[in-house]
Amino acid sequence: MSGDSRTGVWLIGARGSVATTTAVGAAAVGAGLVDPTACVTESADFSGTTLAPLNELVFGGHDVVGTPLPKRAEELARSGVIPPRLLDAVHDRLMDADTEIRAGYDADDEIDCQAATAERLVDDIVRFRERHRTARTVVINVASSEPPLDKHRQYADLEELEHALARPGRPLPPSSLYAYAALRAGCGYVDFTPSPGARVPALDVLARAHRVPYAGSDAKTGETLVKTALAPMFAARALHIRSWSGTNLLGGGDGATLADSGARRSKSLSKDRPLAGILGRPVEGKTHIDNVPSMGEWKTAWDHIQFEGFLGVPMTLQFTWQGCDSALAAPLVLDLARLVARAQEAGRTGPLPELGFFFKDPVGLNEHRLLPQYEVLLSWVHGLNEGVAGEGV
Amino acid sequence: MSGDSRTGVWLIGARGSVATTTAVGAAAVGAGLVDPTACVTESADFSGTTLAPLNELVFGGHDVVGTPLPKRAEELARSGVIPPRLLDAVHDRLMDADTEIRAGYDADDEIDCQAATAERLVDDIVRFRERHRTARTVVINVASSEPPLDKHRQYADLEELEHALARPGRPLPPSSLYAYAALRAGCGYVDFTPSPGARVPALDVLARAHRVPYAGSDAKTGETLVKTALAPMFAARALHIRSWSGTNLLGGGDGATLADSGARRSKSLSKDRPLAGILGRPVEGKTHIDNVPSMGEWKTAWDHIQFEGFLGVPMTLQFTWQGCDSALAAPLVLDLARLVARAQEAGRTGPLPELGFFFKDPVGLNEHRLLPQYEVLLSWVHGLNEGVAGEGV
Amino acid sequence: MSGDSRTGVWLIGARGSVATTTAVGAAAVGAGLVDPTACVTESADFSGTTLAPLNELVFGGHDVVGTPLPKRAEELARSGVIPPRLLDAVHDRLMDADTEIRAGYDADDEIDCQAATAERLVDDIVRFRERHRTARTVVINVASSEPPLDKHRQYADLEELEHALARPGRPLPPSSLYAYAALRAGCGYVDFTPSPGARVPALDVLARAHRVPYAGSDAKTGETLVKTALAPMFAARALHIRSWSGTNLLGGGDGATLADSGARRSKSLSKDRPLAGILGRPVEGKTHIDNVPSMGEWKTAWDHIQFEGFLGVPMTLQFTWQGCDSALAAPLVLDLARLVARAQEAGRTGPLPELGFFFKDPVGLNEHRLLPQYEVLLSWVHGLNEGVAGEGV
Amino acid sequence: MSGDSRTGVWLIGARGSVATTTAVGAAAVGAGLVDPTACVTESADFSGTTLAPLNELVFGGHDVVGTPLPKRAEELARSGVIPPRLLDAVHDRLMDADTEIRAGYDADDEIDCQAATAERLVDDIVRFRERHRTARTVVINVASSEPPLDKHRQYADLEELEHALARPGRPLPPSSLYAYAALRAGCGYVDFTPSPGARVPALDVLARAHRVPYAGSDAKTGETLVKTALAPMFAARALHIRSWSGTNLLGGGDGATLADSGARRSKSLSKDRPLAGILGRPVEGKTHIDNVPSMGEWKTAWDHIQFEGFLGVPMTLQFTWQGCDSALAAPLVLDLARLVARAQEAGRTGPLPELGFFFKDPVGLNEHRLLPQYEVLLSWVHGLNEGVAGEGV
Repeated sequence: MSGDSRTGVWLIGARGSVATTTAVGAAAVGAGLVDPTACVTESADFSGTTLAPLNELVFGGHDVVGTPLPKRAEELARSGVIPPRLLDAVHDRLMDADTEIRAGYDADDEIDCQAATAERLVDDIVRFRERHRTARTVVINVASSEPPLDKHRQYADLEELEHALARPGRPLPPSSLYAYAALRAGCGYVDFTPSPGARVPALDVLARAHRVPYAGSDAKTGETLVKTALAPMFAARALHIRSWSGTNLLGGGDGATLADSGARRSKSLSKDRPLAGILGRPVEGKTHIDNVPSMGEWKTAWDHIQFEGFLGVPMTLQFTWQGCDSALAAPLVLDLARLVARAQEAGRTGPLPELGFFFKDPVGLNEHRLLPQYEVLLSWVHGLNEGVAGEGV
Repeated sequence: MSGDSRTGVWLIGARGSVATTTAVGAAAVGAGLVDPTACVTESADFSGTTLAPLNELVFGGHDVVGTPLPKRAEELARSGVIPPRLLDAVHDRLMDADTEIRAGYDADDEIDCQAATAERLVDDIVRFRERHRTARTVVINVASSEPPLDKHRQYADLEELEHALARPGRPLPPSSLYAYAALRAGCGYVDFTPSPGARVPALDVLARAHRVPYAGSDAKTGETLVKTALAPMFAARALHIRSWSGTNLLGGGDGATLADSGARRSKSLSKDRPLAGILGRPVEGKTHIDNVPSMGEWKTAWDHIQFEGFLGVPMTLQFTWQGCDSALAAPLVLDLARLVARAQEAGRTGPLPELGFFFKDPVGLNEHRLLPQYEVLLSWVHGLNEGVAGEGV
Repeated sequence: MSGDSRTGVWLIGARGSVATTTAVGAAAVGAGLVDPTACVTESADFSGTTLAPLNELVFGGHDVVGTPLPKRAEELARSGVIPPRLLDAVHDRLMDADTEIRAGYDADDEIDCQAATAERLVDDIVRFRERHRTARTVVINVASSEPPLDKHRQYADLEELEHALARPGRPLPPSSLYAYAALRAGCGYVDFTPSPGARVPALDVLARAHRVPYAGSDAKTGETLVKTALAPMFAARALHIRSWSGTNLLGGGDGATLADSGARRSKSLSKDRPLAGILGRPVEGKTHIDNVPSMGEWKTAWDHIQFEGFLGVPMTLQFTWQGCDSALAAPLVLDLARLVARAQEAGRTGPLPELGFFFKDPVGLNEHRLLPQYEVLLSWVHGLNEGVAGEGV
Repeated sequence: MSGDSRTGVWLIGARGSVATTTAVGAAAVGAGLVDPTACVTESADFSGTTLAPLNELVFGGHDVVGTPLPKRAEELARSGVIPPRLLDAVHDRLMDADTEIRAGYDADDEIDCQAATAERLVDDIVRFRERHRTARTVVINVASSEPPLDKHRQYADLEELEHALARPGRPLPPSSLYAYAALRAGCGYVDFTPSPGARVPALDVLARAHRVPYAGSDAKTGETLVKTALAPMFAARALHIRSWSGTNLLGGGDGATLADSGARRSKSLSKDRPLAGILGRPVEGKTHIDNVPSMGEWKTAWDHIQFEGFLGVPMTLQFTWQGCDSALAAPLVLDLARLVARAQEAGRTGPLPELGFFFKDPVGLNEHRLLPQYEVLLSWVHGLNEGVAGEGV
């Protein structure tokens, strides 16, 4: 395949469950071995858009662990995430991706300043892009969630930030250092998790300076997805929500990370935003996130919604969502890679609010209702083909 | 209060739980005793529309039973449907409505032809309208569900139908005879249940001839409401629904009626339509409707949705809806009365697809997704004020 | 009614929801106005036992608040806990109970040593007993839950404890001070909550010295009740439980108290005991207790149980319990009053493991499976009539 | 391995999912490759009993289809019922079982009278027994459910039945013809399904005449299992059950069979018995059994229980059971084979009420509560070792 037509997908956390499922899926769907179920951009609503074909995506990335992708794929097959019959068929593509993974940023091993690390990260991405002569490369962070960032002067000013990076210390959390490197390399960037990433004012300045777009944060793949489909129903029917309580049980790496209170705080903040956004007020009730290691790759959410109908009569809606985390996330990684690449092609820079459909905490978008977000997405992506770059919502 | 500014609400099944809750609610909300929760047309999205004020609605109707409304209200208070503290406050308004209820059509008592009955029904409605000098009166059928209608020549041709009515026999089911009378009286008509009602081709001709609008069928107040909020989520995310099974447990009169297989057939047909409509194909799985007398005025629906994600991984969503049937239906009766009156004021005749938001089987509308239906409703009702009558969708 | 045949029920927290429902229920059931549903000792399995008749129970107690019982009963009627029609019928009996309520122990108002307070509490109970010439009086703590007790020398030795009480300070938490007074007054005592109460070694010595029995702790009225019915099923079928997670949503006073982390710790400890006891090992998974004020008197528990079947196949059981807290607790208060009085009559002293059926953390009993506990209870209570005092299990 | 110590397990429906999982499991557990989870007779409570070791069970059976067992095992591995890693390890044992499967009774192919067929079936079993020199062989019917039997004279009288068998026609349903053959061959027999099987008076006479025991009917493996654990909780707590409604969604062969109304009638009858048995009265509410082919080997049951607490307050318990049918059934097949063989060894003949723990409709036992059934089982099996044959309950 000639270069220039290819699109690079550079994943932070490239050996994790989500990244592995993404690479397996792109290969399997691209080769026509399975239906493109759950790939939004492959659905009929997207026909006529000129997004990069799945089989022209090239994968690489950073990670701090070394497990080979085919081994990770086997583990996921045993957990029921990947159909065992696909393993042989995608083996070569996985090995290709495996050779494109570079050592990630490990704060504990760091001896130099973060500026030096950033140089190395930029260099890794640029060489990948050159090697594969990709038309565009999108960097997507699918690594573990980090705690929210405290306010600090250096985050507000790019110049000050770059001075801080040049000194010893760790001014930026990993997600934001990766975002810094991605933007510096001229790549679109996606905050797939609630980590700070590009959501730092100084990095927004950087994105605009380098004329690259970015999207985020925190892909909605389960409980929050359902919330943003159901809350508008209550609002449209003028039903008064008294309380909305939720419990999320999850295992795998995600469960363990979120057992850490800092990361859970990030997640909880971004999980609570859509409901308050849709209802226009805070709502009583907590959202628990429990690490249940024996759940493995699966997650279960139970939500209990108490609402009032006519004359104040109390009623209840409960739902239980049982899903496979990586299988829910991976197709959205593919969607976002294609859409951000397309946005960059169309000359968009800075935040992409039109991609809010995918996120719990959509940068630049006040609309949290799922269907209106979908309409925004569709109208934008079809507009691109008509030469409308669509500068925000 | 002077006439002409008032709007009549003529309910078929005027002594039932839904009608009683509607009359109590209009009085209580109209007097500011309770918030207008669940009244869609009272929400902020409707500000600026010129709908009839709730306290200018006048109630009357037909019924085949004789229980006084205040007695029904007491029963409903004991069941938790109506707050007991409201009973005294609305007593006079209930008595007013009670005196406006006339003997309904009882097929078993019928000795004459249906044409004669229709004359009497028309006369009841016209006298009510004159007595209260209402600007407009809307007839709404909230009586028990009837089985679906078999195809028959006379249903397709108004002239033939009227010949049949003039002969002995019962060519029309009660709901359609009421619809016939309402349209003949120049009143807007609403099929709140899945009964045939105005959904007979000859009656559509009649509605257009008399220049009156009609709306229906089968208000979505529970399981189907949630379905039309959730199914679009699966569609927008390209998740493949394998099966959707549901069980509805209900008591009260509704439960008993639907235990009858004919009526249940009507209900099931209209309940299944939205899902097939949204997904564009029939879906595996049954919808049960069980009569559980001890549930009283309450209903519980459990739905089990099996879906496939990326790479075919099977996942599940379940929900349980626990609601009070009359409290869910009554505010929609008020909404529909106001909206149909407004449509008639604006000169609309024939079916009103813009009201599809309220119905499981929306006449004239192919859109079953709840939020897009809501957008259609809002855009239409606001357009009316700008002089746009909006001839269909 | 002549004295001596009457049984006193002295409630700590005598103006709370549980106490009020108990007093209303005893009057209403005793007068034959409602069926004795949920009263275990009124069921057919107890026929032939000679327990105090419900209409010969006399109520009194301590509380730190002053709301009259009839007012509390009205509030509970509005919340659906008490049928409104009973209010008039039980009014006089409630007023009788109301006049028997004395000021409780309020640590903040305390100026003297706890020994002096204890004297006053003993005196209140003794005078009540004399006034009504009760054959026996049982003291039951239905007040708010307290945090667990730290280990301390004085709790292990009665003499040291009494020295400490005589000095300024608050060596005992309220529940244990009430237990101390009850035992000193020669009354049987019940820890209905997880508070320390009589579960202090020195108080066990006191109970035996005064030859009075006691029972506890923490009545199982919802989630834990179901757990102790379901966990034995998994054990008997050799199914391997991987994780058991639970979320409890509750409002009312109980919700607010348990929002306090200390009290929640007591509750969680006693909630987790049965599962580990039945399975013989600790099980993965958390139990959340959330205060959701808008739930009012109602509570909802959702439990998610992941288990392994043959060949390690993973399966799931989930349940949702929706109950009314006071209506679940009150009949057990009546059962325990009657059973502890009967035990004392039969000469039992110290802990009553045979009442473990009622408790999450049954004193002196290692059996946590509900049905075997029930067999123990039945066999013991019927044995009493045959002159078998049954010294423990 | 020498004969005489081996126990034969002759399965009717020997190539079905349950039979295949049973054979795979016996081999895998017997070889120590997996834990004996879900095998009741392998649990600690059974230590000291002298049941046939799992690795000394020999499998054979009848079936009307020809798919080789290893192929069925592969299908089940793909569905997640059998861990793929076991396939190679058990292959030889499966092939052994495969060679022992004989053509079953197919009513459509039948040309002779049923007596002739019975001779052939007896012969198949006897030759198997001789080939393997088994000490005892137990015949267990795990084939598709059949409709209930109408009353008929010939079912009440063995002589009349045998005359009927000798004439053309099909007096017996397949399950009962197999039972007839098993008993004639001197083998213990188990009705694992709700089919008539041995539950025909004439066959009881036959069993006693041949001095063989039999057990049944309809193993409880899901919804009913949970029912018999939960209903006793309500009874012991004197909570009044108003309604108990259930919906079962199942795929696989079982779903398809039960979609047939006759077989569903058998199943529903046996599913409803325990609840009425435990509560001592019929209870409002239906139990649906839906065939949802896309559920495959998995089944989901949702139960909704409305109950009344103190003072008539209505409350609710709901549960959702998600299980794998064959994995739930197979270990019970092993348990029953071992227990019935042991009963025969101990000289028991006729029905075995002590095995009621395993069944929805336990022959000869009025106790439906799970834990008391378990106590009956344990006490009986341990009694056998002390030389107590235990002639019924």
